[in-house]
Amino acid sequence: MTVRVVLDAMGGDHAPRIPVEGALWALRELPELHVILVGQEDRIRAELARHPTEGLPLSIVHASQVVEMHEHTIAVKAKRDASIVVGMRLVRSGEAEAFVSMGNTGAVMAAALFHLGRIPGIDRPALATVYPTAHRPCLLLDIGANTDPKPWHLVQFAMMGVIYAERVLGWPNPRVGILSNGEEPGKGSILVQEAYRLLQESGLNFIGNVEGKDLSRGIAEVVVTDGFTGNVVIKHLEGTVSFLARFLKAQLTDGALDRLGLALALPGLILAMPGLVCLLPSLRRAFRHLDYREYGGAPLLGVNGVVIIGHGRSDAKAVKNAIRVAVRAVKEGMLEQIREGLESMTAHSPMSDTPKNPRISPTV
Amino acid sequence: MTVRVVLDAMGGDHAPRIPVEGALWALRELPELHVILVGQEDRIRAELARHPTEGLPLSIVHASQVVEMHEHTIAVKAKRDASIVVGMRLVRSGEAEAFVSMGNTGAVMAAALFHLGRIPGIDRPALATVYPTAHRPCLLLDIGANTDPKPWHLVQFAMMGVIYAERVLGWPNPRVGILSNGEEPGKGSILVQEAYRLLQESGLNFIGNVEGKDLSRGIAEVVVTDGFTGNVVIKHLEGTVSFLARFLKAQLTDGALDRLGLALALPGLILAMPGLVCLLPSLRRAFRHLDYREYGGAPLLGVNGVVIIGHGRSDAKAVKNAIRVAVRAVKEGMLEQIREGLESMTAHSPMSDTPKNPRISPTV
Repeated sequence: MTVRVVLDAMGGDHAPRIPVEGALWALRELPELHVILVGQEDRIRAELARHPTEGLPLSIVHASQVVEMHEHTIAVKAKRDASIVVGMRLVRSGEAEAFVSMGNTGAVMAAALFHLGRIPGIDRPALATVYPTAHRPCLLLDIGANTDPKPWHLVQFAMMGVIYAERVLGWPNPRVGILSNGEEPGKGSILVQEAYRLLQESGLNFIGNVEGKDLSRGIAEVVVTDGFTGNVVIKHLEGTVSFLARFLKAQLTDGALDRLGLALALPGLILAMPGLVCLLPSLRRAFRHLDYREYGGAPLLGVNGVVIIGHGRSDAKAVKNAIRVAVRAVKEGMLEQIREGLESMTAHSPMSDTPKNPRISPTV
Repeated sequence: MTVRVVLDAMGGDHAPRIPVEGALWALRELPELHVILVGQEDRIRAELARHPTEGLPLSIVHASQVVEMHEHTIAVKAKRDASIVVGMRLVRSGEAEAFVSMGNTGAVMAAALFHLGRIPGIDRPALATVYPTAHRPCLLLDIGANTDPKPWHLVQFAMMGVIYAERVLGWPNPRVGILSNGEEPGKGSILVQEAYRLLQESGLNFIGNVEGKDLSRGIAEVVVTDGFTGNVVIKHLEGTVSFLARFLKAQLTDGALDRLGLALALPGLILAMPGLVCLLPSLRRAFRHLDYREYGGAPLLGVNGVVIIGHGRSDAKAVKNAIRVAVRAVKEGMLEQIREGLESMTAHSPMSDTPKNPRISPTV
């Protein structure tokens, strides 16, 4: 089975160089993959010319426009020939099975909603990411698709998260938590308190509130939150890890005493080298576990198509892994699984936007 | 000038042992301090009996009841002889200048609102904490007093934060940011977008949105957010730091190869010891900078009294530092500074709860 993945060659901070490198890397690793690079053809060809590409299952579809990272979501409406829009149309028409972009998250979501639409039963799509914990990572959603969701949207996120965790990631019987400002029931914003009650009645394996300090403890496989809080938390993790590394390094190389200490310690450290080298595989494994690039990209759950969105600062490895996630989602039948899973769940919880809260139509 | 600080001897996970130890430590360090321990007298006396206390400026006020950590805020209404309530009355009557507790945050806030009331111009108090960054720490508020504030409450938080940072902490002309899910203007929940507009007109030194990853970069001295998000973020920091330490240690001592590596490295590490010892002061300084216990406690800004709330898991050092923060706030005239500062700011931004959003009265 060939999986055709559209890659937005213009998305991310170093496009088209990084997407092209990531695509070639993915093609070397994944035999079933066919990549369709979408974007400004001359720039893509110039980038491809720097690599050996003969015989690779790779094609180019030209798109003259680019939605820049800082542009408003609305740009996808004005730029009808943007790489994001052209790529999304390829998925809609069945010429490709999945869409991957490191570009403007808001624009990708808007284009997905407009061109692919939503899965029946889902009012709002959610962006899900794998959050590293000591054991099995957990799936955190939403991390940025909806800044102001309603309580029943969080229940829909939980349902999609459970189906994705169980059927695509292969984690059996995932526990569901809701991010809150205290572990006791009754803690939380109005949104969280109402969603808590709905989740209790949802038939899901709901364990209750999860505090910010407990995310990394791996006490739930699926944690739901609104896209505002989720986005703040996931960026906070990124900021904290890089801050700690920089901070400790700066503190330990700052003063004269530090430099004297490092000089004095050097012979010993050299002697210790063979032993320290033995620790390297563990250290590498640890950092890989914490490295967002390993997880590649965040699936946009709830739209009628496999859409994976990566970090704008992704490197080629992250692009490669985002494509890997897309291929896996296609091969595991993610869309069918979510459709089927939702149908079997709706008996338990017939929640969706009521007339008072009209279904959000894809108005972008 | 003697500063009389009420310490809730029954607050925190290991009360009254930890509060008593912290009080004694603070008394040794702060010559102007008088501590009033409030709580169950026999238990406090039993704890004090384990230490030399003769001649220390220390008194006990009996309170028969305790609001437990897990109890609902409403408990302070029912338990009229709880340590929190009795202590707050001492501040109200002028028998003490400040109140410090490691107990139930919601209950302390409710008691403060009810017994001390609010500063004119402030609709909701906010809990502020010092967030560590590479340079000067930043003041983050609210971290848990209001889970669902209105936009103008965030402006009031910003005003109080600026006054506290400038006049109590001594940071000149603090920059103000608002925590958001993107740095561009227009990003954010509805709450954040509206507060953003109000902050632009506030006359404060407003620099715009601050993302989760930028909190530790120290780009603003005061960062405002709703109490839900602030609480999740501050606990997330706590969780991430302890997770990383545990995770790296586990990864590096896990396998047979790791143990071989450590054994092989040992002679070298011993040889390197004198050098490594020189690095210790820097390492200690670094950890102290990151240690929440150094910052002691979070001031509850906006109530008519100096109220400092500490972490339930505080140790004696954290209690000592919370008392230190209280003494400093009293000596710097925190309340008068906030009252004065608000008056000079109100010309710029006459924001408060409108009739449609009636002033929240202390109904607890």
